[in-house]
Amino acid sequence: MSSATDSTTLPSSASPDAVAAAAIRRHLDGPFGSVRDHCRALDPATFGPPSAPLPMDEHRARVTSQLAALAAEPYAAQGFPEHQGGTARYGDAVAAIEMLGHTDLSLFVKAGVQWGLFGGAVSLLGTSRHDDLLPRIISGELQGCFAMTETGHGSDVQSLLTTATFDPQTDELVVHSPSPAARKDYIGNAARDGQLAAVFAQLVVGDESHGVHCVLVPIRDESGSAATGVTIEDCGPKLGLPGVDNGRLLFDHVRVPRTNLLGRYGDIDDAGTYASPIDNPGRRFFTMLGTLVRGRISVAGGAGAAARSALAVTTRYAVGRRQFAAPGSEVETSVLDYRTYQRRLLPRIATAYALQFAQHELVSTMDDVLAGRTTSEQARRELETRAAGIKVLTTRHATDTIQECRELCGGAGYLWANRLAALKADTDIFTTFEGDNTVLLQLVAKSLLTEYQSTFGDLDTAGIVRFGARLVGGTVIERSAARGLLQRVVDATPGRDEDVTLGARGTQLRLLREREDHLVEGLARRLRRATAPGADAFAVFNAAQDHLVDAGSAHVERLVAETFAASVESCPDARARAVLARVCDLYALSTIERHKAWYLEHDRLSPARAKALTALVNEVCSELRPHAQALVDGFGIPEGLLTTEMSGTA
Amino acid sequence: MSSATDSTTLPSSASPDAVAAAAIRRHLDGPFGSVRDHCRALDPATFGPPSAPLPMDEHRARVTSQLAALAAEPYAAQGFPEHQGGTARYGDAVAAIEMLGHTDLSLFVKAGVQWGLFGGAVSLLGTSRHDDLLPRIISGELQGCFAMTETGHGSDVQSLLTTATFDPQTDELVVHSPSPAARKDYIGNAARDGQLAAVFAQLVVGDESHGVHCVLVPIRDESGSAATGVTIEDCGPKLGLPGVDNGRLLFDHVRVPRTNLLGRYGDIDDAGTYASPIDNPGRRFFTMLGTLVRGRISVAGGAGAAARSALAVTTRYAVGRRQFAAPGSEVETSVLDYRTYQRRLLPRIATAYALQFAQHELVSTMDDVLAGRTTSEQARRELETRAAGIKVLTTRHATDTIQECRELCGGAGYLWANRLAALKADTDIFTTFEGDNTVLLQLVAKSLLTEYQSTFGDLDTAGIVRFGARLVGGTVIERSAARGLLQRVVDATPGRDEDVTLGARGTQLRLLREREDHLVEGLARRLRRATAPGADAFAVFNAAQDHLVDAGSAHVERLVAETFAASVESCPDARARAVLARVCDLYALSTIERHKAWYLEHDRLSPARAKALTALVNEVCSELRPHAQALVDGFGIPEGLLTTEMSGTA
Repeated sequence: MSSATDSTTLPSSASPDAVAAAAIRRHLDGPFGSVRDHCRALDPATFGPPSAPLPMDEHRARVTSQLAALAAEPYAAQGFPEHQGGTARYGDAVAAIEMLGHTDLSLFVKAGVQWGLFGGAVSLLGTSRHDDLLPRIISGELQGCFAMTETGHGSDVQSLLTTATFDPQTDELVVHSPSPAARKDYIGNAARDGQLAAVFAQLVVGDESHGVHCVLVPIRDESGSAATGVTIEDCGPKLGLPGVDNGRLLFDHVRVPRTNLLGRYGDIDDAGTYASPIDNPGRRFFTMLGTLVRGRISVAGGAGAAARSALAVTTRYAVGRRQFAAPGSEVETSVLDYRTYQRRLLPRIATAYALQFAQHELVSTMDDVLAGRTTSEQARRELETRAAGIKVLTTRHATDTIQECRELCGGAGYLWANRLAALKADTDIFTTFEGDNTVLLQLVAKSLLTEYQSTFGDLDTAGIVRFGARLVGGTVIERSAARGLLQRVVDATPGRDEDVTLGARGTQLRLLREREDHLVEGLARRLRRATAPGADAFAVFNAAQDHLVDAGSAHVERLVAETFAASVESCPDARARAVLARVCDLYALSTIERHKAWYLEHDRLSPARAKALTALVNEVCSELRPHAQALVDGFGIPEGLLTTEMSGTA
Repeated sequence: MSSATDSTTLPSSASPDAVAAAAIRRHLDGPFGSVRDHCRALDPATFGPPSAPLPMDEHRARVTSQLAALAAEPYAAQGFPEHQGGTARYGDAVAAIEMLGHTDLSLFVKAGVQWGLFGGAVSLLGTSRHDDLLPRIISGELQGCFAMTETGHGSDVQSLLTTATFDPQTDELVVHSPSPAARKDYIGNAARDGQLAAVFAQLVVGDESHGVHCVLVPIRDESGSAATGVTIEDCGPKLGLPGVDNGRLLFDHVRVPRTNLLGRYGDIDDAGTYASPIDNPGRRFFTMLGTLVRGRISVAGGAGAAARSALAVTTRYAVGRRQFAAPGSEVETSVLDYRTYQRRLLPRIATAYALQFAQHELVSTMDDVLAGRTTSEQARRELETRAAGIKVLTTRHATDTIQECRELCGGAGYLWANRLAALKADTDIFTTFEGDNTVLLQLVAKSLLTEYQSTFGDLDTAGIVRFGARLVGGTVIERSAARGLLQRVVDATPGRDEDVTLGARGTQLRLLREREDHLVEGLARRLRRATAPGADAFAVFNAAQDHLVDAGSAHVERLVAETFAASVESCPDARARAVLARVCDLYALSTIERHKAWYLEHDRLSPARAKALTALVNEVCSELRPHAQALVDGFGIPEGLLTTEMSGTA
């Protein structure tokens, strides 16, 4: 079929690829490009993955040394404010840890635990009395754990069983695990290196429980043995991340000074009285959790980096790989020329681009919030919602993409030497740690509804939702250089006329918005039933779970597409912009195609148009095929981290 | 919504589950149940997975010992005819190796290489002069490799580069790897244990090449060193299967006696003249490949077993796991009560059932063919097509299901001690070995078209296809005790009336058939264009690749659903039958739901009906929820192979 698009079409002269790749890479590097270049200069022999799989103990020791070497670099300090010994360059810190996602994912996680989770908890939940710990945390001299998850509670951390009971006699907190289900589980840095743990526990003062708070508990003594009353177990070998020493902690009435409470959101004063700036215990806890948003943002960053590594390895292999000669031809066909191969590879490259631009937006917003340039409660909540949503999409993308890459490389993809095995095994846990993806998407959907409800009170549901969707979307458009442009693009495209091409950016964005609006509106109506007299609220919510998941997902997919569209417009290089516009088309169109059943079921696409959509995705794939190599070169992954055995043997 | 079904509804008295589980298990065990019980009695300490991950060398040594112990059992001999030292119980042999899929998958693959692939090649491609090798192969005294795949050719094995050139002077074959791409790659048993390799190579006699044949080449001498002219490399560590010694073989003009040619389908006589019962070299090679169908059937069996292990481990965990209390409740909700959890788990259990029954049909047909009870060319081709299709569906199911199970178990699922890690890593290669799934589905679709074309000549395409679909489907129905019943079920259900419930088995089967028929008919029309004068045949085929994949998939899904439906009808226990009928509903309905976009796009489901379909899937899920434990108990996996750390900690 002929090209049915009114967006910029790709000039066939878009080559030479090397030039385009350089411009694409500059644009894709985003707002924290200089720290990326700094990371690219790290010695892969020191920071890269091991050259052969190591026994678990050796791998752990290697990662511990790597972490020490990393402490000499500026990245850790960037994540903390100046009064805590940092340099307060939060965006740089997250971009740097994202780049670690191209090295050994064990190092990425170990660093994330030490500086992001543990350091982050002390920095953001602690008070001035804890500030002196941070220089030692930044330097790696003091190593710590983030002890939240318990064997019995992973998603529902508000119901943790560990207790921290204030003893006024001794002015101490008594930390205790009352049952096997209260065991702290899967805790990174616990089995080998951690000295101090940030332990989340129900804080009990007098006979009142104030909900979950965080208490610092030394878990090892000077000699490295478990501290008195602390039992440390090793989680042992895992599917992946062999260099991370995950462990378990059990506390038997362990006493720590009262001042070990990280008391920013709830503290016990010298008189033994508890006080908090936030009255509601639930809101208090979720406020604490909210400050730790950097963890999810970092996981998204690492997942995105791992997926890009897999796509780069696979595309480089595919470019040289030929299989089956066409009838009448002596030359075998490049596997990249097969439609099924293009279909499996190119939309995932497009998604990698889309998510990278979304990650930039997210990190920039986080940077503003952590640096105090943005202070509104609304902005903080939006950041949390966005972080949860992008974490889901990116980790899902990583799991799906690395799997597909493994299969696209056949037997070669299965060999450890070709990188995909470790990428797959190491990132597999990302879909469930730092928030289970299915649970997070429901939180995203609920938070959308909550925001509308609390802001607008009794307005009719549909009106609220429409407004809200625009509001949340607004942030993205506002930030980008293309402010207002996206809305103009959408407005300029006529309605659902069959003649309107799916290639028009306005049509693509409108379709994604329509799905989000419809799902969120329907959800609001549906959940309102839970408030009817005599309604079984659980049953109503439970029956709507898939609806929540879809609404959350639709919201984030729309945001990501809008961010991508705005990023394309702001690309200064015309040739790169033309390629990126096509990549953006592929992301938007393949996302719509994935939800084709929904669009047909809700009469937003006619059957004829739905078929045209598939044809158009095929067309964009073949148009982008010659640019596949340039697109993965645009990721800017250091050459030393992409060495495989198979590159030379295709 | 109320139950909109006219198939047997589940009596709420279908408990106690233990009784139902026993009856379900008996029925699910199928035609080769006694060998399954024999395998269940194997000592898990000897044959199970190691209790902790082992270094690669130790794991390989352990599997080699396990293989020797396994040789003392009757299973290997069952796979060979009596004149070769076997007991000719082919179905039992495959059912036994399937049961190995519940143990260490490394043992499953190692046994499959030795007895299935290597032994199978000697048995089925060799002539009487090779019969004396088989007792030593069965006993494990002579260990071998199946050296087909090359670095440069995996899917297109007809284009292998290795040559076997007849030298009349010495009456020898000269086996040679002319380039690095000709290197035999990923060859199981090559790196450590194999003594003899069945090497696939282009056979050259005089100046004529006769296409790919198989030649026995000793690769190690008595001392275990590489034989003269043979270079053996180790593929090294892999994503999974650490106990399998995959390696690479390069041949430098290696000479073997002419009689090492496995000459059943093409031989060189004492005068040095080549002769074959099959003139066409292409057809000759595919006939040889066809005889090796047992490999694909075994892979499907192992993948199905691994998926069942994962489902059993996960369901047992889920039954005890609670998270979040409902509003106003003190008790936390069982995770199995959440809709998203049910949606993620139960359709996969249903698919496991469907594929197990399909596997029984496949193995029974194979048993008939190998034992010579079925001799028609048509039946053999049908078996090959079916084996390819079931291999795709089952390995895809395994990869998808084990991944979902890992995520459903969160952090616990990531720990090696909980089995899912090894199941996932070990089976990952199954989607691409013994035939890449994407390529196989295209072969399935092409073979359907080819059969119709060759049988019916010039009949109109639609007519041919309709007839053909019925024909292929016929075998299943014929075999089952419910002969004719399925057709009556379909015939008895009125057409596309909105009033016809989707719960009716007839509606379900008709929808699956309609999709297959439409896809295959459209494909036939589409591919006919390739024969038009001046047509670019490659372009036509390439553009239709996704269509081929969908048609192949639709064909197998319809077959599997019909087999399941017939198996339900033949279940003698009423209570088990009622549960199985609901499981069959869930398989059929969730399969149709997955293709909802297609049904809407082709006006086979109205939007209202499509929504009702989703509601019905939800309903069947909650109806089956109380039976989840009984359903995984019905898999009959030995208790000693399901031990995990997490069972006790939920």
